[in-house]
Amino acid sequence: MGLTRRRLLATAGGAAGALAFGGGGYALGREEGGDPEAVPFYGPRQAGIATPAQDRLVFGAFDVVAGSRGELRALLQHWTAAAARMTAGELTGAAAEQPDAPPADTGEALGLKPAKLTITFGLGPGVFDGRFGLASLRPAPLHELDALPGDFLEPARSGGDLCVQACSDDPQVAFHAVRNLTRLGRGSVELRWLQLGFGRTSSTTSGQSTPRNLMGFKDGTNNIKSDDRKAMDRSVWVGDDEPQAWLRGGTYLVARRIRMLIETWDRSSLSDQEHTFGRRKTSGAPLNGAHEHDTVDLVARQGDGTLVIPANAHIRLAGPGANGTRILRRGYSYTDGIDPVTGQLDAGLFFICFQRDPHSQFAEIQRRLGRRDALNEYIRHTGSAIFAVPPGTSRGGYVGEALFG
Amino acid sequence: MGLTRRRLLATAGGAAGALAFGGGGYALGREEGGDPEAVPFYGPRQAGIATPAQDRLVFGAFDVVAGSRGELRALLQHWTAAAARMTAGELTGAAAEQPDAPPADTGEALGLKPAKLTITFGLGPGVFDGRFGLASLRPAPLHELDALPGDFLEPARSGGDLCVQACSDDPQVAFHAVRNLTRLGRGSVELRWLQLGFGRTSSTTSGQSTPRNLMGFKDGTNNIKSDDRKAMDRSVWVGDDEPQAWLRGGTYLVARRIRMLIETWDRSSLSDQEHTFGRRKTSGAPLNGAHEHDTVDLVARQGDGTLVIPANAHIRLAGPGANGTRILRRGYSYTDGIDPVTGQLDAGLFFICFQRDPHSQFAEIQRRLGRRDALNEYIRHTGSAIFAVPPGTSRGGYVGEALFG
Repeated sequence: MGLTRRRLLATAGGAAGALAFGGGGYALGREEGGDPEAVPFYGPRQAGIATPAQDRLVFGAFDVVAGSRGELRALLQHWTAAAARMTAGELTGAAAEQPDAPPADTGEALGLKPAKLTITFGLGPGVFDGRFGLASLRPAPLHELDALPGDFLEPARSGGDLCVQACSDDPQVAFHAVRNLTRLGRGSVELRWLQLGFGRTSSTTSGQSTPRNLMGFKDGTNNIKSDDRKAMDRSVWVGDDEPQAWLRGGTYLVARRIRMLIETWDRSSLSDQEHTFGRRKTSGAPLNGAHEHDTVDLVARQGDGTLVIPANAHIRLAGPGANGTRILRRGYSYTDGIDPVTGQLDAGLFFICFQRDPHSQFAEIQRRLGRRDALNEYIRHTGSAIFAVPPGTSRGGYVGEALFG
Repeated sequence: MGLTRRRLLATAGGAAGALAFGGGGYALGREEGGDPEAVPFYGPRQAGIATPAQDRLVFGAFDVVAGSRGELRALLQHWTAAAARMTAGELTGAAAEQPDAPPADTGEALGLKPAKLTITFGLGPGVFDGRFGLASLRPAPLHELDALPGDFLEPARSGGDLCVQACSDDPQVAFHAVRNLTRLGRGSVELRWLQLGFGRTSSTTSGQSTPRNLMGFKDGTNNIKSDDRKAMDRSVWVGDDEPQAWLRGGTYLVARRIRMLIETWDRSSLSDQEHTFGRRKTSGAPLNGAHEHDTVDLVARQGDGTLVIPANAHIRLAGPGANGTRILRRGYSYTDGIDPVTGQLDAGLFFICFQRDPHSQFAEIQRRLGRRDALNEYIRHTGSAIFAVPPGTSRGGYVGEALFG
């Protein structure tokens, strides 16, 4: 039994500390093993995919500098144990124990609730490049995406051997998670890039509302809902037909940093904006309908014969369309200040999606979008990464364990 | 009466839109003029100083490119009106009205509650440099801070003619505010730098807990509480002795981007960390005490005669100390990803403070800290700015109106 963040505080902080976040009954609940704000870490799937999208994101991509297969394995064991503790609201280790040693937890989440923290691990193509004797275990689809139309990719915002997706309703809890995993991995991994997302842009479960993106639109209304098991099995989870047994029950994560050319967008007319998306700005309704969830009618025509939803509208090209390709979107709005070159706002969508085959799903959709999407005038893809996400694990095990036999 | 964000949605979005954020009773409350989540904009002081610190921040600094005094005045009028609307949860203008014109609001906050949004405007030294005929109205203390020990300032993260501090419990609402003011100011201002803060680090009112900074410590426990009117009058509000009448009842904002050398800090021992701050990590108690709010005893000594709170401890040097200098701290934790030069995490504290004289208050404290503070080993000041914050205004008026007489 680890020290929970709240129990430790109550013990060491006394009355003033306990007062700071109100009530001891909650801590008691934690001791009894239940925490309404904690998302279970262990299970057949990693959390953070089918679990409801939280409000905030911190996403880290890492280069592995470990020199051996054993070291990589130890890292994954260490990370798994720490993630299980943090998602339960525990410290990664005592924040204050041995005066002469660095604290085993950095402490900034001490006293904070788990706030639905999920930590999701992914393995990039580099893990299978031969450094760790794992080359024969590389699933065929796990290679960088081919160049796509509209790419303006920056190497420093792309790629990575491992990823950690930390989502929570409290950004400090998500930051704490990635920061402590980085610290625990020192010597085995180096942080390659880090992205903070301040607001979720997707609804991933039935009943969750569709938030607006920074263009002011509801996009992804017809996202796969993770409680639609049939759709999840068909489009998201890697099936038993995957030759690499270790990835069955897992999925692929594609991350794309999509910068919006905010200033240009803001100068475009309402009509241009609505025709770009194929939706009404205020209601979120498709141009053929009145309400957000009205069925998108791709063949409806105006009296003059022109399509109601234009041929190059985002909703037409991004939707499942003729070939039925769907993905589970789970992205976040970001801002990273001012672009030092142009002096313009660097803000947009940190797009994350999950699917069973990134090349026939995300990449296929993006090829379609990249060629014709009216939105291209207003966006730039500045970062890209792909990771295989192993299935979940159970207590005593670790994420990726099936790789090490 | 403007369209509220929620009313507009209910009108135009129909049932699906209304469902997205639940309940129509709230919208009714808005029509009646009361919104429990709205902080009043109008009043003798600008909101965002003495009002309780919200959880999230978006801070923008602007260069004025307007060519005349009249243009600057019109900007302040325009900004004030828009801020009053947004803090009440209204749009800056109709998001969807004329198809052929750009929407008068960018729309990403449509349907969101005000979430205690405050918008606070400040005027930098540049406003009084002669471009606008205001040179004779410059208050004597409104000039850039002298070079301070420990400065590693980057010009692109420093200075600015105007500032907008947007605080809210919802980061999308704060982002929307700065983004729309930038848009409305196009041609008169250009965004110089933008900083997102993901978590408040200060308690500014009695009863609000002290959050932890990214070093895992509670710092600023003895912050001025804004409901302590005597302390606010003595240390924060510009008094009637200020020759420039327009600033009486206002204050000065100093912003410092303080990067923490996270990796170095995380490798230092618990004992080093606690002696650096002069506080216990877990409880937040001063080293001479047991509880966070115990009185700091700067003269207590160990049995061997050494000071309990070391001579170079942060708590000793940053506190009011011998000369009684105090400031109102209202800062936020930030992360901006990876430093491209060092490959290390760029994260820390975006420090904001308010005081009646920045040079004898903030700068004096920082000179003391910069010379001796044990914390210097772990931090770098990478950005700095100073702004005069005019008093508030009433309906029909605008922030800074007394300047234009």
